[in-house]
Amino acid sequence: MKREQRFETSMKMTNHIAYGITLLFIEGFLLCGFLATFDYAPEANAENKENSISEHLNGKPSILPVTYTLYQDVHVMIWIGFGFLMTFLRRYGQSAIGLTFLVGAILVQVALLCDGVVHIKENGEALLSLQGLLSADIAVAAPLISMGALLGKTTYMQLVFMGIIELIVYTANKYIGEHLLMVVDAGDSMFVHAFGAYFGLAVSFVFGVREKPKEHHLEGPSYQSDIFAMIGTVFLWLFWPSFNSASLEGDNQQRAIINTLLSISASCVMAFATSAIVSKDNKFNMVHIQNSTLAGGVAIGTAAGMMCRPIGALAIGSLAGVLSVVGYKFLTPLIQKHLRIHDTCGVHNLHGMPGVLAGLFGALMAGIASEESYYYSLYAIFPARAPSSEAKLAEIRDDYNRISAGFDRTAGEQAAYQLLALLVTLGIAIVSGLITGLILRMTMFGSITEDQKFDDAVHWELEEEAHEQDTSKHVEGSTRANDQLPMGHM
Amino acid sequence: MKREQRFETSMKMTNHIAYGITLLFIEGFLLCGFLATFDYAPEANAENKENSISEHLNGKPSILPVTYTLYQDVHVMIWIGFGFLMTFLRRYGQSAIGLTFLVGAILVQVALLCDGVVHIKENGEALLSLQGLLSADIAVAAPLISMGALLGKTTYMQLVFMGIIELIVYTANKYIGEHLLMVVDAGDSMFVHAFGAYFGLAVSFVFGVREKPKEHHLEGPSYQSDIFAMIGTVFLWLFWPSFNSASLEGDNQQRAIINTLLSISASCVMAFATSAIVSKDNKFNMVHIQNSTLAGGVAIGTAAGMMCRPIGALAIGSLAGVLSVVGYKFLTPLIQKHLRIHDTCGVHNLHGMPGVLAGLFGALMAGIASEESYYYSLYAIFPARAPSSEAKLAEIRDDYNRISAGFDRTAGEQAAYQLLALLVTLGIAIVSGLITGLILRMTMFGSITEDQKFDDAVHWELEEEAHEQDTSKHVEGSTRANDQLPMGHM
Amino acid sequence: MKREQRFETSMKMTNHIAYGITLLFIEGFLLCGFLATFDYAPEANAENKENSISEHLNGKPSILPVTYTLYQDVHVMIWIGFGFLMTFLRRYGQSAIGLTFLVGAILVQVALLCDGVVHIKENGEALLSLQGLLSADIAVAAPLISMGALLGKTTYMQLVFMGIIELIVYTANKYIGEHLLMVVDAGDSMFVHAFGAYFGLAVSFVFGVREKPKEHHLEGPSYQSDIFAMIGTVFLWLFWPSFNSASLEGDNQQRAIINTLLSISASCVMAFATSAIVSKDNKFNMVHIQNSTLAGGVAIGTAAGMMCRPIGALAIGSLAGVLSVVGYKFLTPLIQKHLRIHDTCGVHNLHGMPGVLAGLFGALMAGIASEESYYYSLYAIFPARAPSSEAKLAEIRDDYNRISAGFDRTAGEQAAYQLLALLVTLGIAIVSGLITGLILRMTMFGSITEDQKFDDAVHWELEEEAHEQDTSKHVEGSTRANDQLPMGHM
Repeated sequence: MKREQRFETSMKMTNHIAYGITLLFIEGFLLCGFLATFDYAPEANAENKENSISEHLNGKPSILPVTYTLYQDVHVMIWIGFGFLMTFLRRYGQSAIGLTFLVGAILVQVALLCDGVVHIKENGEALLSLQGLLSADIAVAAPLISMGALLGKTTYMQLVFMGIIELIVYTANKYIGEHLLMVVDAGDSMFVHAFGAYFGLAVSFVFGVREKPKEHHLEGPSYQSDIFAMIGTVFLWLFWPSFNSASLEGDNQQRAIINTLLSISASCVMAFATSAIVSKDNKFNMVHIQNSTLAGGVAIGTAAGMMCRPIGALAIGSLAGVLSVVGYKFLTPLIQKHLRIHDTCGVHNLHGMPGVLAGLFGALMAGIASEESYYYSLYAIFPARAPSSEAKLAEIRDDYNRISAGFDRTAGEQAAYQLLALLVTLGIAIVSGLITGLILRMTMFGSITEDQKFDDAVHWELEEEAHEQDTSKHVEGSTRANDQLPMGHM
Repeated sequence: MKREQRFETSMKMTNHIAYGITLLFIEGFLLCGFLATFDYAPEANAENKENSISEHLNGKPSILPVTYTLYQDVHVMIWIGFGFLMTFLRRYGQSAIGLTFLVGAILVQVALLCDGVVHIKENGEALLSLQGLLSADIAVAAPLISMGALLGKTTYMQLVFMGIIELIVYTANKYIGEHLLMVVDAGDSMFVHAFGAYFGLAVSFVFGVREKPKEHHLEGPSYQSDIFAMIGTVFLWLFWPSFNSASLEGDNQQRAIINTLLSISASCVMAFATSAIVSKDNKFNMVHIQNSTLAGGVAIGTAAGMMCRPIGALAIGSLAGVLSVVGYKFLTPLIQKHLRIHDTCGVHNLHGMPGVLAGLFGALMAGIASEESYYYSLYAIFPARAPSSEAKLAEIRDDYNRISAGFDRTAGEQAAYQLLALLVTLGIAIVSGLITGLILRMTMFGSITEDQKFDDAVHWELEEEAHEQDTSKHVEGSTRANDQLPMGHM
Repeated sequence: MKREQRFETSMKMTNHIAYGITLLFIEGFLLCGFLATFDYAPEANAENKENSISEHLNGKPSILPVTYTLYQDVHVMIWIGFGFLMTFLRRYGQSAIGLTFLVGAILVQVALLCDGVVHIKENGEALLSLQGLLSADIAVAAPLISMGALLGKTTYMQLVFMGIIELIVYTANKYIGEHLLMVVDAGDSMFVHAFGAYFGLAVSFVFGVREKPKEHHLEGPSYQSDIFAMIGTVFLWLFWPSFNSASLEGDNQQRAIINTLLSISASCVMAFATSAIVSKDNKFNMVHIQNSTLAGGVAIGTAAGMMCRPIGALAIGSLAGVLSVVGYKFLTPLIQKHLRIHDTCGVHNLHGMPGVLAGLFGALMAGIASEESYYYSLYAIFPARAPSSEAKLAEIRDDYNRISAGFDRTAGEQAAYQLLALLVTLGIAIVSGLITGLILRMTMFGSITEDQKFDDAVHWELEEEAHEQDTSKHVEGSTRANDQLPMGHM
């Protein structure tokens, strides 16, 4: 590091105390928000006499719903899964796991607030339940996916504010999709994965306009960091069935588990196969294995609970695995070169394209869904297809009492709405991402210089720094370590 | 690496594109198999009107069975547990976790197919359920155990085909044991652990005949890789009670959880104790800690649900812990020297001997099982011991309605059948393993040269390779790094 | 290492075989204890005819309680969470995870025995149930916390005996608090966290009297070890809601989950904020992030099930996050300097102060608890507040049938008892810790020299040792590696 650069670094650093104080204020605002809005949901509220009387439970206390299991699986996916998946960079592992931790902890509270505002009751209260915690965890996935596109190129303050803005837009978009367009997206492949990926890519585009992305000596893995990243990959792969089925129930939920397992298994095999075919010397490439193996989980998401049959789940997973590896190999370099969009983790290949594929597959499956293959649960899965006439409804309810009045949509109409929701999601993600990118370039959020990119030393008090500053051989030592002995330096 | 070796390497590599294409074909065959065979089980099928009507559920959708929790625990054991347990080698961590991932994803589909074929219905359909997914995960453990014996000495294509053959034989052997011999093996210690271990050792024997195993400079851990391996060890240790109890129910299941926890805790303590006694300077040896601590989980497996009392569980676990460490210290070197069987992970000590011990202990417990200590659940746990006469059955069913007609076996007969199943399992494992070993030596599966053993560079595009090939000092640098600074090289 | 020191080392090592044999004897004693005492609880016992008849289950076997999920979450916290959290030291990672494993496996059996003795039945039997396994896991947390204060400065035999003594005292103290003082401590913040921390600090004080703590060249992290430690941190953070709610039921349990999630999220954000404010260059410090982010889980523990409202949970978590970081930055150095108490992991800041805070907050919440906000569940949560008169009880039981007769305590009295329990816990912890420290200084447990501190080589047969002993450059090589290339050596 030359003297000028070091000077510039310490200039930037003066912002950090302001950042710390800003974090304090953010948590303060969240406290105010919770104070103004939230109370416990009835099932968690001791004031609720039903919990005490509970004749319906034969006088026993209610049992913790098994949903909590799925919630904890998703919980592990968000913090361990996403966090360790991003530790693949040689000198950015502490930031990957650490900033996922910080950003996640802030945003889970923001997501609860956003969800509370949407579901606010007439008395101005919103209610906190296990279901709400689950929704919040799923929402947090979207900004963490966007973070993947920007990894190593932002200050943490940029990430935090990006996440806050993104969650507000996410909530609006999901509301439009679920409540206005009445589409199905069981595993949130459109609302979380596609949304998060294209939002993040739009932000990265704005960053790239100012400064063309170029090769960076720290933008690569070390032998150990690739193994750390596999902790994230494998936990994501294992718990994806829980992610896609967590908000469903009954046979729908069990089907989502089976479909997701099949799809993600097929995408794993196909990602390995394609990696061996397209890589140098026909070996496997760790980047593909860490990411594309998971594409099947995204691609089945929208249709996870639908009757796509085992073969359908395997087929869409296989396709996603191939598509994702091909994206890493051929598309990402083109996008970086021609569109100046740098995508550190390749979220376009893991979340973007497979998310769009999920939306298309969901529309296809919705377009062929019939009473024949779903019986009356058709109207529970696609509520807008339920009849609007009370006469027809009453007949159905004789057999199946969980149906509300719908809008008499045909299969084709439902498919069209599914496609519309996909387009709306992509449009909102890209536009809001571009605007957010411009906002994040404001000086108050700070920025990372080319030299500071992908380097933990920007965010963390590292032990070695102390050592290095004591020795006059600092410059040479550091350079040599990075070039010849990537791990030796660490 | 000398020039000739490098040439040989690039020769071998030309096979890799064929391997990639073979993987595509394998997934294609799996798709065809699923297309021909599978549909959703009733509880996951929307066509099934019962899910809609569900009067028996008061009109509520069925709740996800808590079995899913156990399933996810087993899921973590297979991919995180086995995967990371095998990362202990200095330069084979990426292969350990990566190939576990690939092989697991292929074989879980193969296991579902095998299970489907066994349980096929008259209309030619097989049904996919959560229970089926659980069985498939457990089945996959067998080939992953065999892989432990061969780790670092095969191409991935050899592993994949070994796994496919092994799963077919495994399914046949388990069918013989469970349905023909009607024996109990709750935690699959005979059918999975002993079977997988002796199958793998037989394959390794065939490999060793051609090329005598010798010391290899990469066959050892690094400081970091030993810690990575502990991730696998500890997750296996924690979730073993779920593995042994997942296929049981009622008091039987809770007993299996308690017995397994006690047994595996005792084996952990005894493995540490024995390691301190037999190791150099009386320190602990990481290999023992990573593996022998788990032997109690295997050893209690067959009898996990039986009334062996807390003291029985502790005793068998203690014995297994000692046996396993002694195996590592004294038996493995002898087996390698005299039988030419090289056992990379020491599966003989973790799965082989403890699996046999489990079979013997299971036979003992079956031999002393009586109506006195089991009441009528005796006939649920040992179905062959149930009376064949309807009169006696009717009497039992007054109190206990989950009994089918059996074969009036005595305790002694049941014990003999348990021993027979153990012998059959060992016999089938060894014979089929030898045959499989011969098949895998066919050139179409490729092979690993002595020089390529235990080296990730065979399977993975490594970042450092690019660096190294640019420099003329490659040979020296590499050698020095390995000898003096094992981790510095990585 | 000079020749004298090496000699001294080999002297110490001769104790090790005695240690190994001692471990054998400990497991032997445990077997005797279990033999004398334990049988399966009714729900896990096949002898129990109710499991067979089970009319109350419509003839179906009982389903595994969802508690098992929470149990497994806690299980992961204890061994993966605590184990990896302590791997942060550069050269003590194998001991951190390995000794957690050993000590945990011994102590979980000791905890079961202690619990069995407390709950022994008239016929001299104690019963093993899933609930008992859960309690044992929670009890094991206390000595593992104490181990955090002593990490790197003891032999494993010292840790094992410390743990055994501590668990006996822990059981007594918890009995006093729960059964005699009848206080509430849902997440065991007083009984486990505060107790474990102050017990460990008292032991460390005794150690420091003999030998003043000084700076040690191995007492610091490496780049990789800091990432390993984050595995522990994040799993602890994720599963803390399970820890605090595992022993509760009904709305109380769901409230504890929600409160804990909010508190620990707030403490995570505040720990980052405070770390950025107090650290050099206003960067984050890994020690704070690994530990103080969890302080909110401790601080809400006592009141986790109380009606502290979402805002209360956030506020106490925020406060704990700040307090903990401030403790690391300013208090720990003072305590080390003036009180000679060396605290390797800073348990005073993660478990000590937040535990006391939890006790105070619990007293406050108990002091404002009323029938208005809890309805009749007030008497289930605070059993001592229930009326003693049968007339009043009968009236309550019309609505709420899970109430036993109490002692008519007022809110203020309950608060006073909560404070008393906190003081008793601190007093017992410190006094018994001091005595234990004196016992552990007896030569039979061995000791660690200044030179051996924080070094895995004391406990483990390390691969590199073999290398190093072959070369005459051992001394220089080792020193250089540690000073200039901390990781290069590993």
